Amino acid sequence: MNHGNLLTHLAEAVGPGQVLTGADEMAPFGTDWRGRYRGTPLCVVRPATTAEVARVVQLCAAFGTPVVPQGGNTGLCGGATPRGGEVLLSLARLNHVRSVDAANYSLVAEAGCTLMRVQQAATDAGRLFPLSLAAEGTATIGGNLATNAGGLQVLRYGNARELALGLEVVLPDGQVWHGLRALRKDNTGYDLKQVFIGAEGTLGIITAASLRLFAQPRHVLTAWLGADSIADVVALLGCLRDGVGELVTAFELIGDAALSVVAQQFPDLQLPLRGKPAWHVLLECSGGMPMQDVVSGVVASAIESGLVTDAVLATSLAQAEALWQLREHIPEAQKRRGFSIKHDIAVPISRLAEFVARADAALLRQFPQVEVVCFGHVGDGNLHYNLAFADPACATDADLVARATNIVHDIAGELGGTISAEHGIGQLKREMLTRYKSPLELSLMRALKQSIDPQGLMNPGKLL
Amino acid sequence: MNHGNLLTHLAEAVGPGQVLTGADEMAPFGTDWRGRYRGTPLCVVRPATTAEVARVVQLCAAFGTPVVPQGGNTGLCGGATPRGGEVLLSLARLNHVRSVDAANYSLVAEAGCTLMRVQQAATDAGRLFPLSLAAEGTATIGGNLATNAGGLQVLRYGNARELALGLEVVLPDGQVWHGLRALRKDNTGYDLKQVFIGAEGTLGIITAASLRLFAQPRHVLTAWLGADSIADVVALLGCLRDGVGELVTAFELIGDAALSVVAQQFPDLQLPLRGKPAWHVLLECSGGMPMQDVVSGVVASAIESGLVTDAVLATSLAQAEALWQLREHIPEAQKRRGFSIKHDIAVPISRLAEFVARADAALLRQFPQVEVVCFGHVGDGNLHYNLAFADPACATDADLVARATNIVHDIAGELGGTISAEHGIGQLKREMLTRYKSPLELSLMRALKQSIDPQGLMNPGKLL
Repeated sequence: MNHGNLLTHLAEAVGPGQVLTGADEMAPFGTDWRGRYRGTPLCVVRPATTAEVARVVQLCAAFGTPVVPQGGNTGLCGGATPRGGEVLLSLARLNHVRSVDAANYSLVAEAGCTLMRVQQAATDAGRLFPLSLAAEGTATIGGNLATNAGGLQVLRYGNARELALGLEVVLPDGQVWHGLRALRKDNTGYDLKQVFIGAEGTLGIITAASLRLFAQPRHVLTAWLGADSIADVVALLGCLRDGVGELVTAFELIGDAALSVVAQQFPDLQLPLRGKPAWHVLLECSGGMPMQDVVSGVVASAIESGLVTDAVLATSLAQAEALWQLREHIPEAQKRRGFSIKHDIAVPISRLAEFVARADAALLRQFPQVEVVCFGHVGDGNLHYNLAFADPACATDADLVARATNIVHDIAGELGGTISAEHGIGQLKREMLTRYKSPLELSLMRALKQSIDPQGLMNPGKLL
Repeated sequence: MNHGNLLTHLAEAVGPGQVLTGADEMAPFGTDWRGRYRGTPLCVVRPATTAEVARVVQLCAAFGTPVVPQGGNTGLCGGATPRGGEVLLSLARLNHVRSVDAANYSLVAEAGCTLMRVQQAATDAGRLFPLSLAAEGTATIGGNLATNAGGLQVLRYGNARELALGLEVVLPDGQVWHGLRALRKDNTGYDLKQVFIGAEGTLGIITAASLRLFAQPRHVLTAWLGADSIADVVALLGCLRDGVGELVTAFELIGDAALSVVAQQFPDLQLPLRGKPAWHVLLECSGGMPMQDVVSGVVASAIESGLVTDAVLATSLAQAEALWQLREHIPEAQKRRGFSIKHDIAVPISRLAEFVARADAALLRQFPQVEVVCFGHVGDGNLHYNLAFADPACATDADLVARATNIVHDIAGELGGTISAEHGIGQLKREMLTRYKSPLELSLMRALKQSIDPQGLMNPGKLL
């Protein structure tokens, strides 16, 4: 392994200006958004085309040097952060929307397009690309697919996986799999794209994707509701689904503690309700027809039956945006306030109330000073069940973090849930996997890895 | 390989009455619905539980005997038909709905449940299981998943793949993978269920599935429309999606020739339109709110602009069912009339008109006596583009069939399409795959097969 030689070849492949080796210029690529993981790669390479990505990966295979693909570097589990010594392959320059086919409700975007760029290309064609999450201005579609991102509208439109019609992937040996189909149905053998989606770059590098688009909703209704309990919130979702079917686009839960952090860190944002219910719901319905009357009717019944304590229906786009602002500021508000222990669990919707009751109680028994900052996506059974401590040292106390995490994860596991609903595994949860996956499932995963990346050079130390 | 010995062990595993070896009793399992494939298995084994399936597969692995899993035996590509000498493993006795979780919008069904049984279990819980296809009274959910079945409501709800939350699978060595999660989001490593869905039993045997349910639509609107061209039909779908968004549940295309076959074979069925447009559309919209006014408005505009030549909106459930009867009788009517060459292609929706124009012209040039009987699912770009001949000998002339099939498939391929949209590969299209898949893609598929079924005993001679 002569790294000098590899660097020379890489510079030939992508141009000398696109191979970074200086500590300062590599620094932003070497740590994650939350500053929890750090590593110094051998170099940062910034190819501009699929052919250049393929050449870089070929060279890495020839030199036996590991590769870490990186998009917007907004991941929360260290999946895109180097551990040290790898070639960090940034996909930022593969940022073209290659084509839009409005009649087919599809487009093809390169991996380095930000999610917002993809959304905009769809909008420009009179269509909707529904994937939506807080980091969408920076996160890239390649990373969204590599981590099977979820976000705000999964309840209606599915995860990133369900929005992909086809992929172009550079395989660990540098060959390019051209799988950019744009079909809703294709049953010609194993659906290979499924293997690469959610694999966090450990099986190959997604360089472009063919994506599903939807009709733009002509009518959107946004509302903020208060409720006394999670059981009431789950029952409310059932009433709404019964009433307006699949028009429920988002149904976000916000614990009062999470809202208080936002209010504290962003005092300019206005709170929608006068009272302080234990739980808040941000509801969005959207579709081709006005649904105000029906939704208002369901909400009125819910108030009458006590499921909802208070409600505000947005009467303008500005008011709807102000409600969403509250939801979207939660991660940043938490970050500003200080370190917290983040969890990203999911359980069946029918077990959400039980999960929170059991986890709250178990944590308070062990850590009387804990504050649970909980928010999430009720329709997906997915909670960001985060833990804050008055004493900032607590949240970085490795032993405390491990004990608290095991409590939360064990309860999720007992209720048929998962320890990572939408953030993936990365470095953060790699060790934890062995606690919650059967040896058989882990061995199947390893067999897949071995069959596609026998050299083990794709994003090592992540996921598996 | 002492087969007598294997039979003894199998009888011990499932009970002697559940191992069939007589020619007569095995006959129904040895041929497919269309009577195109025949094979005599070593025996038919009918386990009743997952543990029994596991034991049977273990024994087959130990004896090196291939296994063919079979559900309702309604496949159209010979994927569930034995070639000869295998253990045919019928899943018909694994027919329990294990649990229904209405609040989580999910249920767990065993592989041998008919699709209709699953639909009924959902209905009984006030929910909808939307997968729907002509053979639903006989086809089993295990087979639906093994072939990633499509059907009538894919446009709105997705293929079988998108409806699966988790699987239980007996692996080729007889181990059981317990992956029956009921989560909308779970990003903990490779999504193994995706590998088994659509694999046609070549990687393992699905014994149970956790399935997604939806809200029952409270309002359904069914209509029958006439149009002059496929371009008009595609434009009409765009208008409807713009107008009512995702409420379009089904948008079925029926060529006038296909309707004529139904009328001829089932003269009691009433045709909805007085005229004879070139193309018919069976439209279904459904949702939580009445949509009659909006849909009527869209249809009226479409009549005005000439996209639609004539329209009937069903005014009763009986009338809606009568319209669906016409659509659902197409396969049986074709079968009664005689052999036809069936195709199951898909292209991007934007290329449907071009596909039909090019394929019609190319076929007529080669076979002036051909009659194209075309129907399909416009929202999925999926056409059953079938060929009938006045002279019945034509449809069984292997050379003619191959030439006609290549014409159809080549054009689909050139337009970015697929040679199997929803029927799978089975035995029928195994050889054809090599013409339309890159060697790289085939080698990736083989690598997957090798890593999970190194002995090659799972449904050999199918798919790969």
